[in-house]
Amino acid sequence: MIKFDHNREDRIKLPESVLCQDKTAPMIDEIIANLISTSDKGVLFTRLTSDKYAQLDPASTSHLDYDASSGTALLGKSRPIQRGSKVAIVTAGTSDLPVAWEAQRTLQFLGIAATVVADVGVAGLWRLQERLDEINEHAVIIVIAGMDAAIVSVLGGLTHRPMIAVPTSTGYGVSAQGQTALNSILASCSPGITTVNIDNGYGAACAAARIILS
Amino acid sequence: MIKFDHNREDRIKLPESVLCQDKTAPMIDEIIANLISTSDKGVLFTRLTSDKYAQLDPASTSHLDYDASSGTALLGKSRPIQRGSKVAIVTAGTSDLPVAWEAQRTLQFLGIAATVVADVGVAGLWRLQERLDEINEHAVIIVIAGMDAAIVSVLGGLTHRPMIAVPTSTGYGVSAQGQTALNSILASCSPGITTVNIDNGYGAACAAARIILS
Amino acid sequence: MIKFDHNREDRIKLPESVLCQDKTAPMIDEIIANLISTSDKGVLFTRLTSDKYAQLDPASTSHLDYDASSGTALLGKSRPIQRGSKVAIVTAGTSDLPVAWEAQRTLQFLGIAATVVADVGVAGLWRLQERLDEINEHAVIIVIAGMDAAIVSVLGGLTHRPMIAVPTSTGYGVSAQGQTALNSILASCSPGITTVNIDNGYGAACAAARIILS
Amino acid sequence: MIKFDHNREDRIKLPESVLCQDKTAPMIDEIIANLISTSDKGVLFTRLTSDKYAQLDPASTSHLDYDASSGTALLGKSRPIQRGSKVAIVTAGTSDLPVAWEAQRTLQFLGIAATVVADVGVAGLWRLQERLDEINEHAVIIVIAGMDAAIVSVLGGLTHRPMIAVPTSTGYGVSAQGQTALNSILASCSPGITTVNIDNGYGAACAAARIILS
Amino acid sequence: MIKFDHNREDRIKLPESVLCQDKTAPMIDEIIANLISTSDKGVLFTRLTSDKYAQLDPASTSHLDYDASSGTALLGKSRPIQRGSKVAIVTAGTSDLPVAWEAQRTLQFLGIAATVVADVGVAGLWRLQERLDEINEHAVIIVIAGMDAAIVSVLGGLTHRPMIAVPTSTGYGVSAQGQTALNSILASCSPGITTVNIDNGYGAACAAARIILS
Amino acid sequence: MIKFDHNREDRIKLPESVLCQDKTAPMIDEIIANLISTSDKGVLFTRLTSDKYAQLDPASTSHLDYDASSGTALLGKSRPIQRGSKVAIVTAGTSDLPVAWEAQRTLQFLGIAATVVADVGVAGLWRLQERLDEINEHAVIIVIAGMDAAIVSVLGGLTHRPMIAVPTSTGYGVSAQGQTALNSILASCSPGITTVNIDNGYGAACAAARIILS
Amino acid sequence: MIKFDHNREDRIKLPESVLCQDKTAPMIDEIIANLISTSDKGVLFTRLTSDKYAQLDPASTSHLDYDASSGTALLGKSRPIQRGSKVAIVTAGTSDLPVAWEAQRTLQFLGIAATVVADVGVAGLWRLQERLDEINEHAVIIVIAGMDAAIVSVLGGLTHRPMIAVPTSTGYGVSAQGQTALNSILASCSPGITTVNIDNGYGAACAAARIILS
Amino acid sequence: MIKFDHNREDRIKLPESVLCQDKTAPMIDEIIANLISTSDKGVLFTRLTSDKYAQLDPASTSHLDYDASSGTALLGKSRPIQRGSKVAIVTAGTSDLPVAWEAQRTLQFLGIAATVVADVGVAGLWRLQERLDEINEHAVIIVIAGMDAAIVSVLGGLTHRPMIAVPTSTGYGVSAQGQTALNSILASCSPGITTVNIDNGYGAACAAARIILS
Repeated sequence: MIKFDHNREDRIKLPESVLCQDKTAPMIDEIIANLISTSDKGVLFTRLTSDKYAQLDPASTSHLDYDASSGTALLGKSRPIQRGSKVAIVTAGTSDLPVAWEAQRTLQFLGIAATVVADVGVAGLWRLQERLDEINEHAVIIVIAGMDAAIVSVLGGLTHRPMIAVPTSTGYGVSAQGQTALNSILASCSPGITTVNIDNGYGAACAAARIILS
Repeated sequence: MIKFDHNREDRIKLPESVLCQDKTAPMIDEIIANLISTSDKGVLFTRLTSDKYAQLDPASTSHLDYDASSGTALLGKSRPIQRGSKVAIVTAGTSDLPVAWEAQRTLQFLGIAATVVADVGVAGLWRLQERLDEINEHAVIIVIAGMDAAIVSVLGGLTHRPMIAVPTSTGYGVSAQGQTALNSILASCSPGITTVNIDNGYGAACAAARIILS
Repeated sequence: MIKFDHNREDRIKLPESVLCQDKTAPMIDEIIANLISTSDKGVLFTRLTSDKYAQLDPASTSHLDYDASSGTALLGKSRPIQRGSKVAIVTAGTSDLPVAWEAQRTLQFLGIAATVVADVGVAGLWRLQERLDEINEHAVIIVIAGMDAAIVSVLGGLTHRPMIAVPTSTGYGVSAQGQTALNSILASCSPGITTVNIDNGYGAACAAARIILS
Repeated sequence: MIKFDHNREDRIKLPESVLCQDKTAPMIDEIIANLISTSDKGVLFTRLTSDKYAQLDPASTSHLDYDASSGTALLGKSRPIQRGSKVAIVTAGTSDLPVAWEAQRTLQFLGIAATVVADVGVAGLWRLQERLDEINEHAVIIVIAGMDAAIVSVLGGLTHRPMIAVPTSTGYGVSAQGQTALNSILASCSPGITTVNIDNGYGAACAAARIILS
Repeated sequence: MIKFDHNREDRIKLPESVLCQDKTAPMIDEIIANLISTSDKGVLFTRLTSDKYAQLDPASTSHLDYDASSGTALLGKSRPIQRGSKVAIVTAGTSDLPVAWEAQRTLQFLGIAATVVADVGVAGLWRLQERLDEINEHAVIIVIAGMDAAIVSVLGGLTHRPMIAVPTSTGYGVSAQGQTALNSILASCSPGITTVNIDNGYGAACAAARIILS
Repeated sequence: MIKFDHNREDRIKLPESVLCQDKTAPMIDEIIANLISTSDKGVLFTRLTSDKYAQLDPASTSHLDYDASSGTALLGKSRPIQRGSKVAIVTAGTSDLPVAWEAQRTLQFLGIAATVVADVGVAGLWRLQERLDEINEHAVIIVIAGMDAAIVSVLGGLTHRPMIAVPTSTGYGVSAQGQTALNSILASCSPGITTVNIDNGYGAACAAARIILS
Repeated sequence: MIKFDHNREDRIKLPESVLCQDKTAPMIDEIIANLISTSDKGVLFTRLTSDKYAQLDPASTSHLDYDASSGTALLGKSRPIQRGSKVAIVTAGTSDLPVAWEAQRTLQFLGIAATVVADVGVAGLWRLQERLDEINEHAVIIVIAGMDAAIVSVLGGLTHRPMIAVPTSTGYGVSAQGQTALNSILASCSPGITTVNIDNGYGAACAAARIILS
Repeated sequence: MIKFDHNREDRIKLPESVLCQDKTAPMIDEIIANLISTSDKGVLFTRLTSDKYAQLDPASTSHLDYDASSGTALLGKSRPIQRGSKVAIVTAGTSDLPVAWEAQRTLQFLGIAATVVADVGVAGLWRLQERLDEINEHAVIIVIAGMDAAIVSVLGGLTHRPMIAVPTSTGYGVSAQGQTALNSILASCSPGITTVNIDNGYGAACAAARIILS
């Protein structure tokens, strides 16, 4: 039943990847079997939880390089990594790290090195200021924050770099679904900031790759 | 049909005031006539637009001290102003000023002097830093912001003062109703910040008065 | 990966604390190890459920004073408690108690004694009236209520004290997420009431502390 | 194009009425002409604003008993009024009066006398307590409130009468559409309170009539 | 910590009951122990799931008359049942039955007999028409429906009885939370229908009791 | 700047039409001038209000067959009408007629005759039953309703015909935007009913045409 | 307590079916026992998860033809299948397949053959174009998509066939509940597309059957 | 009261601009007077409607280069335009043009040439395919669409360029506020697409400038 978009890479310079969230383990097993027999390209699996990974067939998992903290798995080869860290992945809090790791693994898969600058939320502004020069040395900035996502406007006013924000679903009450962080980013008073879907570290990495590889 | 809560001031140290928004001009005329004949206390009218003010009976307006920019009118005497500016009213942008003025007029009516510190949004962080010491000299801080309200978290991390935030309905798209600013404030990563309803400069002033007069 | 804001207390008189909700047990273990080795300040952990607490390393838990009913843990020393109960924590129902206890433990950590006045919802108005004088003796009132939060407006009309309301996520149907209680508080007909995020007993305690310690 | 439900009164003891809000003036003119020529029953028109009334054909308006403050018009005869005031219509504020008047006019059309008890919101609790005995003498209570609608829970805990609440769209920010008042009523901590749509004074009157006429 | 409203019955003819949903088993045990030692009145417990019931202390459960299908338990004596079925409880589908049973048990506790007329949704209109005369013999009608709740408008146009609708959270997609059924009822084209919160069979029963006992 | 999809008719048997709502009068003038000079096909303009029509250039309006009640205009020739009324357009109330007329005009433009059956809402069930046989003689049924849209489920249980529902934005409070009617239709307990966007009479007509012309 | 609508098939050509989602296993057992003893018609059970199926009485399951992947079970005989595949069921992604299978099983139960065309989402447009002629050979198209559901507008512009879209609840962040896919379909720029509730493969199949069997 | 962020350009390579929407004409006049006397940098005014422009002081307007169709005005000099069109601004429909023009004017102000490719929505897919090569020659693509915004996923699967989407508030019913278009873009099945606030052509232009000028 599966139809891969194998020439996607030729069209958009990004290979197809597999979002595991709404797929059952048998579906994923079938996809892997299909890929192994028909293609030698590397493929990235995202949102693959430890629980679902444990349900996969050993015939599948033996081909995967799985990382539980980011929920990602690689099948086959990644691209060779270019020299120099090109993307700064900045997080407001420790709880935002899984999304940061998803972005970092995706970039690595695409051959792009990235540096995570964690835990520099603006309630303690000096933490961000201390790392600002390092952040500004990167070609693209991915900034990851939940709750009020205030770091996005502050950092957006301190850098001229292209900046892609990722709202996260951390917090509780009005912030728990990530909608507040998302809207806060969209309404940012700093000009020229863009965003992707809530918790979408993968998408932010692809957007950064479009800029770097274009 | 009108029933005033004349002893409110004795119970909660705040006199009753009149929210004009959903009242017709004849209703407001009737309230004023009633007040003039039964009480000598000062009364504050809020959300009284220029258009509605123009529809009032001259017999009413002759008793009012009206200020169009804040949409407020005073009937009778305000309390004498205490010495020294007690409240800093900080705004992120120029568009937030009408709400700031509503707060300032309300405090003035309650006998409390306040200073407006306008246009110090965090897209240009130095503007806030430049005024920080002045802001911190006040007993209470009211901070007024629309859109992403990022200034609230930043200022909340730079002051130990009680801080009351007012989200405003400025902006467009996801920010136009003030709901994004409100949720952003509620989800702030800085601890101990409180909020009132969208555009509610009057309420923030009353909350500040509860702290100062308590 | 963790970056503490150790001088937060100097800036805002409130020490940094750790929100455990979106952190995995290993993340929390790492934070505790880091804190023990680098600081002798007391740190408060909030939203630490019994389940997650049970997953922590004994090397972590041996340093914690954990209270399951409020979901809080203390690492190191609290401040010495000032004399006299300064904050009245009023709840509408029994179901609101866990949030009340989070507020009380936070205040205790900050050196402030607080009294819980439970189960005085306005469906039986006499219960609140019976305790009113006692409540009014405190410098600050925290009122905690879910569903329609009607107690907030009633109590707000009976006290001149600064009042911080906390909506809770109790109830079902339209009330279950706490949004109805939150909006009800924001729309309160009593003047000068402020609010914090849904279920945020910690935030209300910090706001009370800003008033008392300022 | 109009099809009247002339035997509705036989089935449900309530005659059909005409909601004018989404109808153009020519549509209403056509309905009136149709009614005059085919029926001698009284018909109530609701949500007929002064502006729309002014656009009607004089041939229509000459048959109407129009009341601008409630936005209602009567065509033909009302039922004879039964002896004694059967319904107490209680409002929290002055701004809720137009909805109260719509309810009162509807009841009058159905032959039921009603008393309006206005402006007894719970921010000043004594106002409601002062009128409580009078309210409790009525067979049914309609309570009308916007914003947080806190009066509903308080009154619900003080009366054993059937109580129908009407949320209103007064206020601003989170209260302006009436959704907060509606949800607050639905989540009331007082048992056995029912509600109708926002601003629906007509519906509350019909519900009261079902109880009284059943 | 528990404060009962023991004289509620004198004020509103409805005894206090205990909503178990957000209470832990130990809280409920404490409430029961408290009640047994201080009162001989009957008390109704609602939203008590089988799982939570199983966690209660045998010292508690030995005093309870528990019914799993409605999630209710009685402590002590119910009122004696009046003669004749007074309330028709009509459901659109089989899935609405648990809410119907909650209403029926509550009425029984209040001394009022009720008849459940199940599974008469309007997709097969003849089912409702077949039972219409029987339904109309009751003094009050409670109608319970999820999804589009279309039965409410249809039945409302076929009966002159007071009618209390209960939206349920059955269905999926746009109907799963019960908000669609609730709004549909509030917007009903049949006049004089009232509603209570989603799934609130208890509240509908209390509203019916207010009418019958008033 | 305008790019017509002239071969749309070949692909999908429906010609392109022009949605005027968000276009300025000069934009529409430019579109008409462009069409007149490049094509001899008939084109339908929808959501063209009287106000906007009055702002058009006489050079434009001289080519249009405009109907204010449905807000539609025809440029050039319609298709010849097929024999026999193929579509029944059923409305719950008089206020739904403008949407019905938009559907009827669209079908006429596509060469399909349709009959409007107005004002047969289910609060008076006999009105629908009286017209049922006539309705069932048509190949496709379009049913148009606002508020709770209860007619949709009732009619869906009485006909085997393909049925396309159109929610309308009539009513007030929870029904005013049409979202309640839309969700009610989507949650209908009658099987196999489909829907289109709120007030989208044009879309329902096109869907009916796809069935009839396929 | 169960009341079947056995003559539904005569009225609307679709037999009644049983939505299992909100029914307990004992309720379903009772329904099956009732059906076996009173009817010989085939009945379809939908949304019957493996977990719930496992809880059914063997006396029930012995009569069911259960398919876990679509969550459907057949009791008794299906209609004989007509010749030729009449419906194309098109899915954007692999995750949409369970909804596609529910539609296919429902059509099979109604005697209509259908072909699933899976995984042709528009991110790789060639996949859809490759299958377009095959799709267009069917009398009705059901298109199933979550997230942004962009395939619906694209396919709607490439076919003249009646098209019924089913939004799915796949994805995360703003797409997880299916509301984005639903609204996207309702707002489609391609004319004449209809939709059903989120994940409602059963409803789409019934709508297709109304067209084919009418 | 106005505080400009004059050194913003040095920090982020984008000069400050003035959002006129929530500012009164006198506020804008004051801003212009202030700018003329203190700075010689060019400043862009956005969301300046013809109505508000007409209310400005001639002393203000004499310094402005105003364009009504995009609602923008320039004060002082723009940057010199770089050679070659760098940005393709693609719109789905004619109604999206004002947002496209806002983006184009902003880019021009920043010294970057841009080409508008209008009216290539995917209901007629050939229109986009016809312009694809031209679009792909630009360094950055801005794509502007309302309603279902399906063009975003399609174009995202056909280009490797950085792509910034702008949802617009065109359409009616579920699409009128632009929220459906926004969510649709965020949920796009094409990887690496970013977005800005609804109707925010200015923000998209700034984001494109960050990429080109970085």
